[in-house]
Formats: sequence, structure tokens, C-alpha cells
Amino acid sequence: MTTKNTTALLQRLRAAMKNNQYVCEKLNAYIIPSGDAHHSEYIAPCDMRRGFISGFTGSAGTAIVTEKHAAMWTDGRYFLQAIQQMDNNWTLMKMGMSKTLSQEDWLVKVLPEGARVGVDPFLLSIDEWKRLSSKLESSGHKLVAADQNLVDLVWDDRPELPSNTLMVLSTKYTGCPWQDKVHQARDQMKEKGAAVLVVTALDEVAWLFNLRGSDIDFNPVFFSYAMIGKEYVKLFIDEAKLDNAARAHLMLDADKNTEDYMKVEILPYDDIIAQLKVACQEVGKEKIWLSDRGSAALGNVVPDNVRLTQQSPLCLNKAKKNNTEIKCMRRAHVKDAVALCEYFAWLEKEVPKGELNEVTAADRLEQFRREQEDFVSLSFDTISGVGSNGAIIHYRPSKETAKTLTSHELYLCDSGAQYRDGTTDVTRTVHFGTPSQHEKECFTRVLKGHIGLSSAIFPNGIKGHQLDTLARQHLWDVGLEYLHGTGHGVGAFLNVHEGPCGISARLSLTESTLEAGMIVTDEPGYYEDGAFGIRIENVVLVKSTETKFNFKDKGFLTFEPLTLVPIQTKMLEPSMLTEKEVSWLDDYHTTCREVVGKELELQGRPEALQWLMRNTQTLG
Amino acid sequence: MTTKNTTALLQRLRAAMKNNQYVCEKLNAYIIPSGDAHHSEYIAPCDMRRGFISGFTGSAGTAIVTEKHAAMWTDGRYFLQAIQQMDNNWTLMKMGMSKTLSQEDWLVKVLPEGARVGVDPFLLSIDEWKRLSSKLESSGHKLVAADQNLVDLVWDDRPELPSNTLMVLSTKYTGCPWQDKVHQARDQMKEKGAAVLVVTALDEVAWLFNLRGSDIDFNPVFFSYAMIGKEYVKLFIDEAKLDNAARAHLMLDADKNTEDYMKVEILPYDDIIAQLKVACQEVGKEKIWLSDRGSAALGNVVPDNVRLTQQSPLCLNKAKKNNTEIKCMRRAHVKDAVALCEYFAWLEKEVPKGELNEVTAADRLEQFRREQEDFVSLSFDTISGVGSNGAIIHYRPSKETAKTLTSHELYLCDSGAQYRDGTTDVTRTVHFGTPSQHEKECFTRVLKGHIGLSSAIFPNGIKGHQLDTLARQHLWDVGLEYLHGTGHGVGAFLNVHEGPCGISARLSLTESTLEAGMIVTDEPGYYEDGAFGIRIENVVLVKSTETKFNFKDKGFLTFEPLTLVPIQTKMLEPSMLTEKEVSWLDDYHTTCREVVGKELELQGRPEALQWLMRNTQTLG
Repeated sequence: MTTKNTTALLQRLRAAMKNNQYVCEKLNAYIIPSGDAHHSEYIAPCDMRRGFISGFTGSAGTAIVTEKHAAMWTDGRYFLQAIQQMDNNWTLMKMGMSKTLSQEDWLVKVLPEGARVGVDPFLLSIDEWKRLSSKLESSGHKLVAADQNLVDLVWDDRPELPSNTLMVLSTKYTGCPWQDKVHQARDQMKEKGAAVLVVTALDEVAWLFNLRGSDIDFNPVFFSYAMIGKEYVKLFIDEAKLDNAARAHLMLDADKNTEDYMKVEILPYDDIIAQLKVACQEVGKEKIWLSDRGSAALGNVVPDNVRLTQQSPLCLNKAKKNNTEIKCMRRAHVKDAVALCEYFAWLEKEVPKGELNEVTAADRLEQFRREQEDFVSLSFDTISGVGSNGAIIHYRPSKETAKTLTSHELYLCDSGAQYRDGTTDVTRTVHFGTPSQHEKECFTRVLKGHIGLSSAIFPNGIKGHQLDTLARQHLWDVGLEYLHGTGHGVGAFLNVHEGPCGISARLSLTESTLEAGMIVTDEPGYYEDGAFGIRIENVVLVKSTETKFNFKDKGFLTFEPLTLVPIQTKMLEPSMLTEKEVSWLDDYHTTCREVVGKELELQGRPEALQWLMRNTQTLG
Repeated sequence: MTTKNTTALLQRLRAAMKNNQYVCEKLNAYIIPSGDAHHSEYIAPCDMRRGFISGFTGSAGTAIVTEKHAAMWTDGRYFLQAIQQMDNNWTLMKMGMSKTLSQEDWLVKVLPEGARVGVDPFLLSIDEWKRLSSKLESSGHKLVAADQNLVDLVWDDRPELPSNTLMVLSTKYTGCPWQDKVHQARDQMKEKGAAVLVVTALDEVAWLFNLRGSDIDFNPVFFSYAMIGKEYVKLFIDEAKLDNAARAHLMLDADKNTEDYMKVEILPYDDIIAQLKVACQEVGKEKIWLSDRGSAALGNVVPDNVRLTQQSPLCLNKAKKNNTEIKCMRRAHVKDAVALCEYFAWLEKEVPKGELNEVTAADRLEQFRREQEDFVSLSFDTISGVGSNGAIIHYRPSKETAKTLTSHELYLCDSGAQYRDGTTDVTRTVHFGTPSQHEKECFTRVLKGHIGLSSAIFPNGIKGHQLDTLARQHLWDVGLEYLHGTGHGVGAFLNVHEGPCGISARLSLTESTLEAGMIVTDEPGYYEDGAFGIRIENVVLVKSTETKFNFKDKGFLTFEPLTLVPIQTKMLEPSMLTEKEVSWLDDYHTTCREVVGKELELQGRPEALQWLMRNTQTLG
């Protein structure tokens, strides 16, 4: 990792902060958040401003530059990386340490009286803006929306906003025409007294219109906004992204008398603010619905009395997959299992030769996936970790760090893909030799948690955080733990991480209840620093289940694994499993054998089939 | 239940609402909340204003009276009772039903433009005030603090504020002189930059000064406020409550050179506002710390920039019991177990005679408790429910509803006491004949949940909500559920319900992590409407435990039952229990036999001892 020299850059930024060509009054501080205007988890190169200005490229961090200081807040995952990448102009603010000042407290400490703190209002959410603004105000300072992004000003070779052509996703995959999704949203708007819904999350726009893009790596989304009114639908996008298929899909040139006709207006991406101002003038006594994750740039346009700031209804609509989406997700997972069976069969042959490393192995896995029908891309960078590298939860192998796969260390592989019919995310931990008794105990406890969650039965109305402990309790029993959530929502050929549900102990007031049709992951783990990491991850479907009783007609739910990849029984200490756990595992392996076995035969992959047969033998 | 005629009362209240002797400008609506000025769960008769004005006496409800309307918001537990107790002047607003307007939305609907909504600011918390005020303002109305309570004006025979003499609790019970508690609070204030801490919760004042009162039934507290400054301690209380012992305890007349001397100023209860205003003038750049549950009357006095609104540090300090308190709580629970053994032994003899009902039985239980040393009072109204009455979660037997105890129905008894050395709360469900297979299955599943929670091992840093599901999962497995939390904090000779910890699925951002020394209940249940109710409740202590590993030196915790009352094994279906569960139960019964048996011998109670012996036989 190299250190970036930021002296000249910071000089230019500080000059811009007091240049009244860009700011109407001098700024005493300028905040550079990590995100983009859509609160995206993954961002495009043109939005990597914090990385550009500081050199620090980790996924999380906020930079603040004042006349004299430049400080970077990031969390424990990135302390080392930040120190290596940032030069002496920067001070690292270690988040999570008790002595570290918060951004607000630090600002209050270093700023002169009555200071002006600038930020690009597109890069803070409405809530973040409100919180920061009121904290600064209570200390006599002011948060100022700088309309021109000052980092962009000094970023000479800033990449362009991507503008890749869109892909139309037919009803065969989506199960629901976009017109019906608009109708559903309008019903929900009516319930809340909202005349306009502003859609800001990129995956929500993609889901709404049954379109997919490739503007951001791993996420099949495209830069855009949408606005649904009672009588109109507006899509804010670079029109060049729409080919004839997309134009026809959106009925842009269709006759008004066509069945299902619905008028969509295409407007430039940057017109969102102007159009929102128009909407504010037209809205009367009704509300304009903005997502709580929408940017302050939008929020500040809409007066308080007409603004409804609440989770977008599309977030939940999207999370509840329909039967077509579920069928497609199943299909994607069978294909993905084929690729993984091929991979593990191949690894068994190749690892003993001692020539494979974490990177070359992961590359081969990508190749196996590419062979599958409707493959689009990976759904995230493959985590391919040998031994101690497996203990680094967010590890990404690089040529420099890549360890060789061997017969004496555990290998953790967390990977997934985007297929036109669905998104996958699967982790398996395997040993190519003989695991130690300690590794087996840890693995077995992780598996017991995985099964405990996967086989849980729970009433409608339960939130994911209520199930998290089921995945941890067998580790806790002996004083072990893992420091990440147990599961996240998964999109249908969309983002591999999506809301509004997950399985985590973290409190979130916007978390929705689990409902049939939702798709989440089940991924407990255990990580021993410097030694090994274990994670067992399936994508699972929330579905209704029959129970002996049905208390107050609540209806009960459980999970069904969509991921169908064998779990290595060599890693188990069978005496630690209950009868119920053994029978869950045997049933799971039987399903893998039947469903994936059939596909392997169809695809003519005898080696992988033999591997599958060997690895799905029942314990019971 | 009788219906109260409120016509004349409402006329007088409405007249007061526009009488500028009491309000500077006419009020269009007046809100009457349930609570008192201290956010107490149980309230004194003088604070039962909502019950007085409406006739509705349930524990939860808010009344709003406008010029034309009178409306009452309450939840499903109380719909029937409210309809029976309120006359036609009142409209019931059924909370939890989708069509029911919230108080704010209803107000906005019925009020004329630019209306003034009055409320006694002592009866709304700071947060409630803020929320309601901003909602009303966004619709052009105004929330007004009415300094004179208008209900009190029309309540001719309103009871006096209680003024009972205080009891001093010696260090033998508290383990910590009040002076040390002041020092501890000052350290915590310093960390937050607070120069003043305002103590508003009655149990916090009682805990702080090691004093107990009897102003509110079942809660050994007294009406008061406290204010801790860097140099002073102020106690706002009717000085008549302090006898010589209390005066000496507080060193009111002591020489300044006495060891541990700390000056306490005694001020009238009503002086809190005036003194708070003085504090605001003196505070300079430091903060005044108000509890988030403090009243708006206090909150509105303190300017935003010096106000720290956050959970009181005493809340957590109080929840973590010291070794003396734990020792005393153990002792209280052994005495309580003696009373319950006597009770159940006596019931076994008496029930077959067919002459005992829910009320006479509960009265006898109270007698058994009164025989125990240091008994002060019950800690709540005994829930004594036969058959279908046991299914009413908040059931209180009355002479009119009392069912007879029989040999063919389940009997649920939830009861507790205040002893000078501790507070108890225990529920047992028993059958005096032969339970049905269904009752046994339900009981066994409740017990499996009780054991699952009680024997859980978990790391430091875990919150109670993360453990709640361990108590429910065996019911969920067959489609059953219970609609209440699993546990609550318990005071040490203080309120039977206390914060900031509990075991519940409900999200609370102020919930603290579980720590060694905390005391909570473990009380899963199952309730079949019209048939029977089951609950198994122990008070349990959070304590450190040794584990095979100790991940990142977190330290692991578990629970130890303080309640030592046998669980009826007749109610069990043993084939449904795992080996681990059987061994937990056998160990528990062995402890009951040893510890409580010894005390029964000492107290010379042979019948109860024999009953204990019969009911603590091991299964394994």
C-alpha cells in the first residue's frame, strides 16, 4: 500500500473553501463523506472523493478539512490501512475508542467562533444533516450546503459518471410489470396522504422499472431518480442509457391507447431538484414522500409541513419476492451450486499440488460461474482466505497477500454472483486434510447455530433481531462469539445487501418484520485471529409453515435454504449434534443431491457429480 | 363496574379551560395523562386525575377534552372496562386498531384553526412534550403548559399528597452509604460535563439516600426530587416526613467535622422549579443533566444549550446490585419461599374442601408472608387466577369475579413482597388434580423456555432483548406464543419493576447491557383464552460464569435463580425434556430442598418442609 502525497491537493481545497466563486462566504471546514447521492453501499469511481482527497480507500470513513487540520474518522477494520495510505497532513480519528472525539465535538473544539462548515448536501442523508446541523447550531456554528462539490473542483482527472446502457428485465424474471408496481406505490402513497413519492435508492429505481444497469461494480443499478405522482411517472436519467428495447419497455413512443399504457417522462438526472421544487408548489395539502435515506439536498427543498420523511414503500415491496422471483432465485442458486461443486471438486485435485493461491483459486471459481446460463457478474469481490487470512472478516485477497491453499489449513470461501434470474451469496469453509479437534469443535458450534436459525419456527410479526441469538448460543456456551451480524437481505438480481430486513442484534427502528417471500442470509461464523476463520452461509427464503397449533391465527414462518451446496461433514464432531440437527443436515444434503445432482447430470459434469455424491452422504 | 356521570364535571372543566383566572388565554383542548410528575408506574390516589375525570380506572389511558368532545385512548386490555366505566360524554379511542386516530391526528381533525392545547407540563415527559408540540405546531396549533392543573381545580375531594414518615435503610441492607452514591454520581456527571444532576424518579431518590417511604402502594418510595451539584445536595421533600432517625441519617444537624459529613439542604417539594432556575443561572458552560423521563415542566426551564437530556446515571447504578444487596435479596427470597411452601402445602389440604376462592386464597398467602421477618408489604396486587381467569394476563381477582379453587383446573399465582432486605416476584402454576395432556404439553414448553433463558450463557455487552427468543422458541415450534415480555428488572427493596434492563423483544434505545449484579425476572407463559393460563417466573441474578474459552477477554455471564420455590413436576411431560433440561430442574430442586429446607427447619414448619421434600424429588 502506498501513501498519497496530499499537500498540494489540500492547498487547492483550502483555497476553494474561501474562493467566493464557489462559496458565497468563506468555509472554515469542509466535510467529505464516503457515499454517493443515493446512499449506495458500493459507489462508482467518480464518487470516491474521500479516497481521492486523502489517499485512504477503505469502504468507510469521513474526512473533515479545516484551515489548519485534516482529520479522518474510520473504524477498527481500517486503522492500519488508513495510517499506511494517508500522509502526515492527516490525523486518524479512531472511531470506537473512548478518547476519540466525535466529528461534531472535534469541530466544536477546533473551529473559531461562529464558523461555517460546508458539505455537499447530496452526500448527507436528511437525518444526518438534521443531527449535525442542530449540534453545530447549538455551539454557535452553521452547517452550510455547498452547491458545488469542492473536491470535484480540485479533482482534475475525475472519472465521468458512468453511462452504460440499460438491460430490460422481462416479466419472465420479475413476475410483475412495472406499471403494476407504480399502481401499488400509488395505493401506499394514498394511505399516507402523499401526492408524490421521490425514489432515491438506485436499487429501488431499478426494481420499480424492471431495468438493470452496470454503473456500479457488482450492483446491477444505474444512476437515476424517479418521482411518482398521482398522474405522472418521471425518470431522471441520462437518456443515452435507454436503447430501443428500454424505450419500448417504458412505452416512451407508444400510442396512448396501448393496453397497460402509462406515460413516463424522461428527464435529465440533474433535473431532480428543479422538478422537486415544482412538485412542492403543486402539492397543496398533500405530502411529498422522501425516503429517510434520501439526501439533504432533496430534503432541504421540501418544506417541513409537506414533507413525509419515511422509509420508501418500494423498500419493503422489493424485499417481498413474488412467486416468479422466488422461482428464478431457486434456479440461480442451482446454477451457482453447480459452479461451486465444480470448484470444490477441482480444488480437491489441485490443492495437493501446492500451486494454487487465494487469488488464482478465486479466479477459477469465477470462471466456473461464467459458464452458467444468464451469468452477469460477481455479486461482490470473492473472499478467498486460507488459514489466518480466513480470520479477517472483510478480507479481500490480493496478489501480494495471497496465501497458498494447502492440506493443513482451513479455507474460507465467501462468494456470489449476479445472474439474470437471481443473486447468490454463499460461504463454505473446508479442510483439504485433517482438521484439528479444536477446528472441528468450532465448526460444529457454528453449524449448530446455522441450523438453529435455519430451522427456527416463529410467528408473523417477528423481526430478524429476535432470531439472531439462535445462531450464536452454541458458541456462547463455551465462551466464543463472532463480531458481525448473522444475516442480510438479498435482492433478486439486485444488490446482494438490501433492506429493510436482516438478522442482527443491532437495533434499528426502521427494521421491518419478517414476511413470507423475503430472502435473507444465515451466516454465523467464528474467527480466531492469526489462525483460522469459519463461516457457513446460506441464502434462505422466509416461508409459511404448518404448526400443530396456530396461536390467535398469527400464522407461523420458517426458512428454506435456497443455497444448495454441501457442508463438509469432515469438519464435524458428530457427537456434539442433536438428533434434530443431524436430521436437518441429512435432509439438506439429500436435497442438494437430488436437485443439484439432476442439474449436474443435465449439464454433463461427471466429476462435480461424483464430488456431490461423496459429499452428501447422510450421517444418521 | 359502575358508570360515572361526568356531565357536570366536564362542564366545570370546560369552564376552567376558558377562565382567564387559570389560563392566560382560552384553551381549545385539555389533555389529561395517566401519570404523575415522576413518571411512576404506580401512582398515588391524588394523581389519578384521568380516572377521576372520566370514571375509567384502568392503568393506562389518556383523556383529551375539547369544547365539544371528550375522548379516551387506551389499549386492548381495557376496551371493555373503559366502555363500562365511562358515560356517553366519552368516546373510546381503541389504540392498536388500524382505524383509530392518534391523539395528534385526532386533535388536528377536531380543533379549529390556530388552537391552543393545554396540558399540565409535570405530567408529560420531555420527549413526549417535544413530539406532541412539534406535531401540533406543524399543523398551526400550539401546545400550552397550563401551570394550574385544571382537573385538580374541579376535583373537590381530591386526596392529599401522601406524607408518610420515611424509613432509614442501614448499610447492613444497602451496602453503600448515601454519601458514596453521591460521589459516584458526581464522577459520572464530570464525565459528561454536567455540573448539576436533577433526580426525578422516586425510586432513584429513595435509592440515592438509602431511605424508603410508603407514599405509593407496593412501592417503598416517597414524593421528592433531588438535585446533586458539585458542592451541594438538595432534597426537595415535605420536611415533616423526616423523623429524627432520618435527620440524623442525612446528617442534617451534624457537625461539619463529622466523618463522612456531607451537607444536604432540605427544601419544599414545590421548590424544584425555582431552584432549577437558579441552577441554570449558575451553570455557566457546563450542563444540567435531566433524565429523559423527567417532566417537561423541568425540561422547559432549562435552555437547550445547557441541557443534557439522558438516562439518569442513578438508573444504572441502582440496577447493579452490590454484594450486600445481593446477599439481602437472597435472604428475602428464602423467606418468601418459606411463605410459598406453607401456602402450597396448605392449598393441597384446603382446595379439595371446595371452599377457597381466588381472593381468600390470596389473602392467606399474604398472611404467610406477613409472618416472615422484615416483611413490609406486598410488592404488587396478587394475581390469583383459576382456570380461565389464569388466561387474563393482568387479572386481579375481586370478590365478584373470584372463582373457586378446584382439583380439575389449573391455578396461576403471581405474587411478591417487599421485605426490608429485598423485593420478590414469583409465579407458579399448579394443578391439584390431574392435568390434561394438552396442559402438560403447554406447561412443559413454557418450562423449556424458562430453563433455556435461565441457563443461557452470553458475553458481556449483550442486551436483554437478545435473549428473549430463548424463552419463546419451544412454544413457537408448535405455533404457540405469549403476548408479554419475558422479564423485567427488580429493585432491592424498591419497585418490583425497574429499568434500565429487561428481557423483552420490544426495542428500546435506552436499554442497557446486562451486567453482573443485575436482577431481572424470567417469566415465560402461555395463555389459552377461556381455558387456562400458565406462567413460570423466577427472579434471577446476572452473574459471571467460567467458560472453556473467553473470546477477546469479553467475560461471559449467566443467570442464577434467586427464587427457590419448587416447580410442579406433575405438570411435566418428561419425554419432552432434554437431558440438559432435566439436569437443570433436578439441580434447581436440590437447591430449593437444601436452602429452603434448612430455613423451614429453623422456623419449625414441618408441614411445609414435608411438602418441599415431596415436591423436590429429582426426575433424572
